[in-house]
Amino acid sequence: MHKVLIVTGSDSDLPVIQEACSILEEFGVDYSVRVLSAHRAPDYVAELAKCARENGFGVIIAAAGLAAHLPGVVAAHTTLPVIGLPIKSGALAGQDALYSIVQMPPGVPVGCVGINAARNAGLLAVQILSVSDSSLAEAFCEFKRAMQDGVLRKDARVQKTGVKGYLEASK
Amino acid sequence: MHKVLIVTGSDSDLPVIQEACSILEEFGVDYSVRVLSAHRAPDYVAELAKCARENGFGVIIAAAGLAAHLPGVVAAHTTLPVIGLPIKSGALAGQDALYSIVQMPPGVPVGCVGINAARNAGLLAVQILSVSDSSLAEAFCEFKRAMQDGVLRKDARVQKTGVKGYLEASK
Amino acid sequence: MHKVLIVTGSDSDLPVIQEACSILEEFGVDYSVRVLSAHRAPDYVAELAKCARENGFGVIIAAAGLAAHLPGVVAAHTTLPVIGLPIKSGALAGQDALYSIVQMPPGVPVGCVGINAARNAGLLAVQILSVSDSSLAEAFCEFKRAMQDGVLRKDARVQKTGVKGYLEASK
Amino acid sequence: MHKVLIVTGSDSDLPVIQEACSILEEFGVDYSVRVLSAHRAPDYVAELAKCARENGFGVIIAAAGLAAHLPGVVAAHTTLPVIGLPIKSGALAGQDALYSIVQMPPGVPVGCVGINAARNAGLLAVQILSVSDSSLAEAFCEFKRAMQDGVLRKDARVQKTGVKGYLEASK
Amino acid sequence: MHKVLIVTGSDSDLPVIQEACSILEEFGVDYSVRVLSAHRAPDYVAELAKCARENGFGVIIAAAGLAAHLPGVVAAHTTLPVIGLPIKSGALAGQDALYSIVQMPPGVPVGCVGINAARNAGLLAVQILSVSDSSLAEAFCEFKRAMQDGVLRKDARVQKTGVKGYLEASK
Amino acid sequence: MHKVLIVTGSDSDLPVIQEACSILEEFGVDYSVRVLSAHRAPDYVAELAKCARENGFGVIIAAAGLAAHLPGVVAAHTTLPVIGLPIKSGALAGQDALYSIVQMPPGVPVGCVGINAARNAGLLAVQILSVSDSSLAEAFCEFKRAMQDGVLRKDARVQKTGVKGYLEASK
Amino acid sequence: MHKVLIVTGSDSDLPVIQEACSILEEFGVDYSVRVLSAHRAPDYVAELAKCARENGFGVIIAAAGLAAHLPGVVAAHTTLPVIGLPIKSGALAGQDALYSIVQMPPGVPVGCVGINAARNAGLLAVQILSVSDSSLAEAFCEFKRAMQDGVLRKDARVQKTGVKGYLEASK
Amino acid sequence: MHKVLIVTGSDSDLPVIQEACSILEEFGVDYSVRVLSAHRAPDYVAELAKCARENGFGVIIAAAGLAAHLPGVVAAHTTLPVIGLPIKSGALAGQDALYSIVQMPPGVPVGCVGINAARNAGLLAVQILSVSDSSLAEAFCEFKRAMQDGVLRKDARVQKTGVKGYLEASK
Repeated sequence: MHKVLIVTGSDSDLPVIQEACSILEEFGVDYSVRVLSAHRAPDYVAELAKCARENGFGVIIAAAGLAAHLPGVVAAHTTLPVIGLPIKSGALAGQDALYSIVQMPPGVPVGCVGINAARNAGLLAVQILSVSDSSLAEAFCEFKRAMQDGVLRKDARVQKTGVKGYLEASK
Repeated sequence: MHKVLIVTGSDSDLPVIQEACSILEEFGVDYSVRVLSAHRAPDYVAELAKCARENGFGVIIAAAGLAAHLPGVVAAHTTLPVIGLPIKSGALAGQDALYSIVQMPPGVPVGCVGINAARNAGLLAVQILSVSDSSLAEAFCEFKRAMQDGVLRKDARVQKTGVKGYLEASK
Repeated sequence: MHKVLIVTGSDSDLPVIQEACSILEEFGVDYSVRVLSAHRAPDYVAELAKCARENGFGVIIAAAGLAAHLPGVVAAHTTLPVIGLPIKSGALAGQDALYSIVQMPPGVPVGCVGINAARNAGLLAVQILSVSDSSLAEAFCEFKRAMQDGVLRKDARVQKTGVKGYLEASK
Repeated sequence: MHKVLIVTGSDSDLPVIQEACSILEEFGVDYSVRVLSAHRAPDYVAELAKCARENGFGVIIAAAGLAAHLPGVVAAHTTLPVIGLPIKSGALAGQDALYSIVQMPPGVPVGCVGINAARNAGLLAVQILSVSDSSLAEAFCEFKRAMQDGVLRKDARVQKTGVKGYLEASK
Repeated sequence: MHKVLIVTGSDSDLPVIQEACSILEEFGVDYSVRVLSAHRAPDYVAELAKCARENGFGVIIAAAGLAAHLPGVVAAHTTLPVIGLPIKSGALAGQDALYSIVQMPPGVPVGCVGINAARNAGLLAVQILSVSDSSLAEAFCEFKRAMQDGVLRKDARVQKTGVKGYLEASK
Repeated sequence: MHKVLIVTGSDSDLPVIQEACSILEEFGVDYSVRVLSAHRAPDYVAELAKCARENGFGVIIAAAGLAAHLPGVVAAHTTLPVIGLPIKSGALAGQDALYSIVQMPPGVPVGCVGINAARNAGLLAVQILSVSDSSLAEAFCEFKRAMQDGVLRKDARVQKTGVKGYLEASK
Repeated sequence: MHKVLIVTGSDSDLPVIQEACSILEEFGVDYSVRVLSAHRAPDYVAELAKCARENGFGVIIAAAGLAAHLPGVVAAHTTLPVIGLPIKSGALAGQDALYSIVQMPPGVPVGCVGINAARNAGLLAVQILSVSDSSLAEAFCEFKRAMQDGVLRKDARVQKTGVKGYLEASK
Repeated sequence: MHKVLIVTGSDSDLPVIQEACSILEEFGVDYSVRVLSAHRAPDYVAELAKCARENGFGVIIAAAGLAAHLPGVVAAHTTLPVIGLPIKSGALAGQDALYSIVQMPPGVPVGCVGINAARNAGLLAVQILSVSDSSLAEAFCEFKRAMQDGVLRKDARVQKTGVKGYLEASK
């Protein structure tokens, strides 16, 4: 099975990144986490991206805040699908990172998830690997069912206790 | 080989969609185009998404403008990876569609490309299929090389003729 | 008298939702609160919306944050008027939810209130029910009068004590 | 049956307003169109709003561009539900009107539709009237079915002719 | 000498308003503060604005947050110059109030100051009254000189102590 | 009577400026128009502003696009009230000019009107001069009445001919 | 004297770039223009930037639209000062490019000029070279004087002919 | 060697400014810090800028929040390159300052760095001085190498300890 490569531009993003790791572990998908900046260590990023496919990776998640060039720079050096994860930081609160990641020029796409949505980045990676991995596809199916069940349990609870009761019980 | 399902919320988006089709044709990837609105034909969208994997699709591209719920609604009903394509339209010029597509809640990701970036949506679909299809991976590699060659040719030309000469020749 | 159906995409929105409930209780309007996500429990949302009118509901308030598809998805499955309530959450602080809710495509409207304006969502629901319910219309009239009286009392107090006095007394 | 009152701040908005009128005519709902500015004819707006319910109106659609105070000012003087319609105009292209309309303070709601979405304003008015008018509710149901059929016809056509064929036929 | 009328839409704005009061007191300009909402007490706002000139006021400062219609509604009912003061509040942090105040339609201007810039609202009111009041003009001249002296003192201090020294001394 | 000084940063703004001139002429207020850039001719701007009051001006209208420092720079050198007029130009369409003008720091206010709202800049200047000029105040009163009459005539026409008739007659 | 290196991500930017060239020619500064994309020809961009200083360049102007990574990628590979020039293109009209260029992470600065402000990019390059080139400094001084003279001539003309006369003469 | 002039509009910006000072000290570049407001002490700013080159300065860093005219006003009075540093403050969190600084009109450029990016402002100043100072260029080269080494050390650590281990060790 293919592994997932997670690259982030700064170790300050690791608390967010951790949610992607949890998801991958939940699905039993192998992954590597690298802290490499597109601006401070550009040659290492290029090298990492160029060798990603031959090193057994199937998808790359690249996270960055502010100008957030990392996902695009990684995409420039690989043919693997790249998931961009904009990180909330600084005065513009991630809107800058979102634009820098999603508005890639024609020819070099990045698939962008929501600001700080590391959990979704992990899930999208799993979905991509599931295209040709039926057991992963089944696991994802099960994951969706469980997620729905969780919603339904909450719904049942709020119907039973009312909003006030629900909120008091959650304190 | 898996096929790509392209769904769009309105037939007015088809001129944009066409660029995704061209890319898929260029890579020899089979695809279907459907015009189904998440709001005007919701049950058909749900049905389409639910059966997409068993119908041989590997990736779904969903395009929409304005409130742009289609990609998210499709993602709600499938375990396949969904590429969201925000369409430029109306007074907010696609910023609304971008936010509606990229900011999906935890658990149901959409991989969003740039506003009107249908070409990139197509390429990302190819990249996703290439994860487990080495001939597609090689074709993508070739595509990147050709793209770089195109840039280098333009660069050589502008170095030779200067900006003015280049612009005059392009008229 | 018709009831009001309140649906929210996440139980984390319930503290905001509570203000809508208070208003409905104040006017003696029956309501149900459901926690159902457009993305995590889509079929249940569709079912709920489809049966809302026959189940005695007259208006639906749908609240959601981030991509905030819930109000639009509900509107897709009902002919009842839907009030959309964008919830402030995440890096874009509700601007994403606002756009996702208000910019619905032609044919499927949602009447959107302000970000986190649950109180106004409740009041708008009351106003809608009051169209054909003269006692509710009278109650609303009384509500407006009381609201104006509240303003006038504050105005009188600030005229009497001055700003400094007013602020000190409010501490 | 209740009538719909349409007020707009400027006669330059009338081409947009016309779409709301068409919808109301399609559903056989009576309406009046008034051109009255919240800033240039404030007393007339106040008077109009105050007497709207007793004059047989059930819903008010108020449209305005720029600072767009009209819907809020109307709402201040009536207990009827007010639908706000932000008009695209000026340098901010309707984003100013959207904010001015949707962000009403607690106590005086306006149900806002999309920028220039006059058609949806009309439909929302019909939905509001349909709450206690079963024949209107049935007509709306029929309208939704026809809308879905329209989508399905387009979908069938694009499946049959392909995107290129569809676009050529639409020229 | 003319007085300044300060109107605010909510008593929660009074802490901000207070800075305008301080400035007016510093210049010995008489003022009244009123808490009246354009939406919750519209007739009182209209009445207040209509009588402002004959009651001896020369300028009106109107403050509001969110949809912030108050300055425009006041301007609709008076020929006096109106200074609009957008208040920071809610999810959009005053950007909504700024747009609602500054983008007034042709014919009914409001002179808008910065978000929460109550001090500047007060100073602009003084400047307006100073047009035909030479002693106020002189006082303003003196105010500017003192303000410049304050800057120069800080500048001298930072040149003497350096940034670190300055910051330590300020703790 | 005091004159109005109009300064603009570029002669490309003159077509917009012209609307302010028309208003001042309509009210019989004397004015001067100067084309002086805060960045390209800063000493001349400073000199102009410093001498404005002694040269008989009572209000200054300063217009600029893009970074739009002119109104603030003028305000730095005068004690007269300054009306800032943001001009729509460039990629940000005047939003940059609006922020640059309205967000002045404490101590040096500018009263900002809407983007390209030259007519309102002229009217606000008249209102400021009218504070101590009762004939101007009366003229403004008359102006408002005429403006309202214009609205009422349009309203009467649309009530008589309907929207379609109105639009056809306007062609 | 050092040369200026101009790199742009796409030949479609060349009409804008041309204004920077004109300025450099006006000041007699040598320059090279290269068309190289950070995403489509990343290794060539890296190589170009790495060798820029030893190849006699003193400043680099890098222009790009959309995600606009080029200036940052260039800055990652050089110690020379990099001027970023955001290009207006696509649905977000250059706001994306502005954010992507200006919000560089700590350690790797880019000095950003306005959207499409190629003329200013050229002038800033000249200013940077003028730091240690007194004849260039003098030429820049002369340039500013001429620019001011141009403004004063226009100002004199508008004072003489009035706005209407000025505009008619400009037709 | 040329010195760097740092000007800031308010002493409240000094904690941010300090990071620029640290960088300059690290590179052994002399600098002066001045606290002078473009609006409250305009003549002193003009004088300071006019004499900057003859006083031995080679680059000017100008920092300001809100309307942020200081960098542009400084640039108006000097031929030296000006680095603009937008400060995060107020309701718009620095977006206003960014626009006010970066969108300078043709002829008077400012090189803008990110919001609150004082460290980058200092580094860009060093890069500008390094153009004709080979020892500074070498020092910058060394700085980049050290920065990359720092990244690589973090990367090695996260590879060794994993994300959880890394985060626990960082507590």
